[in-house]
Amino acid sequence: MNISGEMLLGNCAVKGSGSPTYAQNPATGEKLEPAYLSGTKDDVQTACELADKAFDAYRNIPLEERATFLETVATEILVLGDILVQRAVAESGLPQARIEGERGRTMGQLKLFASVVRSGNWLDARIDPAMPDRTPLPRSDLRLRHIPLGPVAVFGASNFPLAFSVAGGDTASALAAGCPVIVKAHPAHPGTSELVGKAIISAADKCHMPEGVFSLIFDSGHDLGAELVANPAIKAVGFTGSRAGGLALMNIAAERREPIPVYAEMSSINPVFLLPNALRERASALAASFVASLTMGAGQFCTNPGLVVGPAGDDLSDFMNNTRAALSESQAQTMLTANIHNSYNNSIGELLTNRAVSEVATGLESTEPNRCQATLFSTTAAQFLTDDSLGNEVFGASALIIQCDSIDEFIKVAEHLEGQLTATMQLNDDDLDLATRLLPVLERKAGRILCNGYPTGVEVCHAMVHGGPFPATSDSRTTSVGSAAILRFLRAVCYQDLPAPLLPVELQTENSLGLTRLLDGTYQT
Amino acid sequence: MNISGEMLLGNCAVKGSGSPTYAQNPATGEKLEPAYLSGTKDDVQTACELADKAFDAYRNIPLEERATFLETVATEILVLGDILVQRAVAESGLPQARIEGERGRTMGQLKLFASVVRSGNWLDARIDPAMPDRTPLPRSDLRLRHIPLGPVAVFGASNFPLAFSVAGGDTASALAAGCPVIVKAHPAHPGTSELVGKAIISAADKCHMPEGVFSLIFDSGHDLGAELVANPAIKAVGFTGSRAGGLALMNIAAERREPIPVYAEMSSINPVFLLPNALRERASALAASFVASLTMGAGQFCTNPGLVVGPAGDDLSDFMNNTRAALSESQAQTMLTANIHNSYNNSIGELLTNRAVSEVATGLESTEPNRCQATLFSTTAAQFLTDDSLGNEVFGASALIIQCDSIDEFIKVAEHLEGQLTATMQLNDDDLDLATRLLPVLERKAGRILCNGYPTGVEVCHAMVHGGPFPATSDSRTTSVGSAAILRFLRAVCYQDLPAPLLPVELQTENSLGLTRLLDGTYQT
Repeated sequence: MNISGEMLLGNCAVKGSGSPTYAQNPATGEKLEPAYLSGTKDDVQTACELADKAFDAYRNIPLEERATFLETVATEILVLGDILVQRAVAESGLPQARIEGERGRTMGQLKLFASVVRSGNWLDARIDPAMPDRTPLPRSDLRLRHIPLGPVAVFGASNFPLAFSVAGGDTASALAAGCPVIVKAHPAHPGTSELVGKAIISAADKCHMPEGVFSLIFDSGHDLGAELVANPAIKAVGFTGSRAGGLALMNIAAERREPIPVYAEMSSINPVFLLPNALRERASALAASFVASLTMGAGQFCTNPGLVVGPAGDDLSDFMNNTRAALSESQAQTMLTANIHNSYNNSIGELLTNRAVSEVATGLESTEPNRCQATLFSTTAAQFLTDDSLGNEVFGASALIIQCDSIDEFIKVAEHLEGQLTATMQLNDDDLDLATRLLPVLERKAGRILCNGYPTGVEVCHAMVHGGPFPATSDSRTTSVGSAAILRFLRAVCYQDLPAPLLPVELQTENSLGLTRLLDGTYQT
Repeated sequence: MNISGEMLLGNCAVKGSGSPTYAQNPATGEKLEPAYLSGTKDDVQTACELADKAFDAYRNIPLEERATFLETVATEILVLGDILVQRAVAESGLPQARIEGERGRTMGQLKLFASVVRSGNWLDARIDPAMPDRTPLPRSDLRLRHIPLGPVAVFGASNFPLAFSVAGGDTASALAAGCPVIVKAHPAHPGTSELVGKAIISAADKCHMPEGVFSLIFDSGHDLGAELVANPAIKAVGFTGSRAGGLALMNIAAERREPIPVYAEMSSINPVFLLPNALRERASALAASFVASLTMGAGQFCTNPGLVVGPAGDDLSDFMNNTRAALSESQAQTMLTANIHNSYNNSIGELLTNRAVSEVATGLESTEPNRCQATLFSTTAAQFLTDDSLGNEVFGASALIIQCDSIDEFIKVAEHLEGQLTATMQLNDDDLDLATRLLPVLERKAGRILCNGYPTGVEVCHAMVHGGPFPATSDSRTTSVGSAAILRFLRAVCYQDLPAPLLPVELQTENSLGLTRLLDGTYQT
């Protein structure tokens, strides 16, 4: 497969007609061929019409065929081979091993959703049989299943050029739900996007999926993304990126004639609470694992631990000294884009001029382009509670240590936090009383609560929640990672007294798919 | 229990301090004592603080106790006895038998949700056990459950003074989810609201629920409702009412610093499609049952059949003649409020001056106050497709018949519709081909699809969906009637590597509650 600078409008690979942009290798500053020309509003309209037209056909394809399509997408991504890995490395500055691992995760996600599609649990099939003899009124035959919302707009994320981009988690879960997908490619990795997009189209072709089940749009700016979200054919949006970007999409979606759900994963500082006994016993080990988590991937993870909360005193000083020693030897790593690197440096600059915080340690400098020098700050709980800017996410390898003078301050800091993707407690058995006090506060703040680990490294499984109260996400009810992500793209439909030939197969009395269904309120297989 | 004009701020029954308003008996125009004084912004703040404070305590009460609380609310409503029935009749103009039936439904809903709470299926408990030996990376122990969103604001509906008001479906499902509830009473039935509110507080007292689990606010206008939705303590909103009212709440919720979900059930004309063979064979019976559904309760149901779509010709003429005969004998019934009656008459007036429609039949007139004269109009599909005003809901016993010149026009009318709560097909075996074409269109438009019935009469069960795409509701993913309504007030939380003593009982390995849980992706009991 060649990289040719083409968008995908259904099965048609076409070049845009707008202004040309090029990817850049952030590690070297090198411009990468070919040019990617932005699409037009007409291109968005074409993709939306194709998706709308494909919707009924795609959603009514047997589940087994839908599952096979997802598995074939995984295969076609692997078939792309080294060209994909090399291009993604060049466009992202991420190491080859990381990209290969991410490719594995991307394929694993697609296969997980294939198994989810087959299980049919997401249908939440329910049957309340008719009661013709009930008094005073008979009961009708009532059956419920979930159907897909309709075409979904997905925005590729910069920090996972494979796993949260063109065939990433949002796309996999939307396709699994039965929704056609239109991806707005992230301008930082257009070549990777084109290759993966073509792999999806190749799989769609092999599996005889209707044209329009997938399209891919390029735009160097924000106009076409806005146009896409505003298009009446689009029924939901998946986005991973900045708070400003997510809020902009939420506003567009809310102002439509028909408002639609937006699943935006935006901003999280992932607090880590060092409970007193764990800190006393493990200050050195905690510092080493914290620095590893903080600096992994230049800190460019949604779950990067950006806030550490501990009891002021000698044990926390030990932790900070150990952290300083480890961090001062950490290499500056390439960030994903020059913009992200500039934003990081600006945020660090602001913190350096904030008299409420002091610098604890920095990592090694580098004169190479776009390298992230890790930075660690500290402040007091009192300062943190009065300066809201200290709760803002800094995307990159930066964190803030908060020193608490009392257990009450510990709890106050937790209560003061905005919504988070994760919250972590480092604890020993002797910390359980405090942890029991802290836990209900953290449950109100975060989508995932960890003990004695670090939040980076998100397992793709059934029990994962990668979500959380605003501003971590725009919709705290759901997750964007793991099999429950399919639930975002579904709505419930009830069928009352339908003749058997009209009933969807999932709700026919004989249960030929072997689904687990709720019969009169009780699970039956 | 006396009716004394009191709001409920937690356990405190207090009179408001704003302007006094009185309920009116719509059947007679009589003013009903006592005066209800509007609350203040401080009252809203007090209720919100109490709810916020009660939240952790309430959500962590064992499920069995939460279920008993709901059942006790049902008992306490019954204990109110005749004073409740008489007051609800006086405030709504609805017949006593209807109010008694609605009381039974209200109690039934509370008991259904008690059984749902006990089942724990809504927790969607999932366990992915640790895999310490997995390569290249071990897997953590990951467990998921759903927790309640937080305090919920509920707006009482005018048309169900019991079943969709103070202790109605929204309140029952939110309390079942573990959310404290603050109800903004509907100004048309303050006495009914006060009585039921006091029954809830009495049950909360008997069951030792934390203060703040329930509050009740009065306001003659819209200010306190807006204040309530804007309060940071409120995490979700339940509303049944007009499109304008629902949109106003959606806007307030979207503009908050932390946007929250609004479940507004707003507007639906509930199309009924008369398929050709059914119409030919059953024109007379279809007409009789249609008129019964149209005029029931003066047409004041969200699911009132406001649109009938049929193939132009002799069979449809038969249907219209039979409908005219039945409707012309239908008594004018009391509407819920003078405002609703005025709105109805205004809408009828607009249709009468619309040259695209003609009047088919009217019901009997009445000189008594606030009586609804049923009215039936007809138009052509061509007109309907070009005049969007013909798709607006008329709240009351009014419907529009659309005459289609072809099967394609039939489908076009379906495709042209906005989102609906229900869509109905009247069909015979010979209509199955057309029904198969129509069904996917209707699935995209409606939350419930019926065959050979009428949409009024909403069963409260597990498979019910009382929801649908905008503007039927603000959130098509869910239902406001039936046990799945609990899902609206929940969010997923993942627990990673928590020590056993910290794990919620629902997720402890021994499964002492006997829940159905997803273990590594497979249901286990």
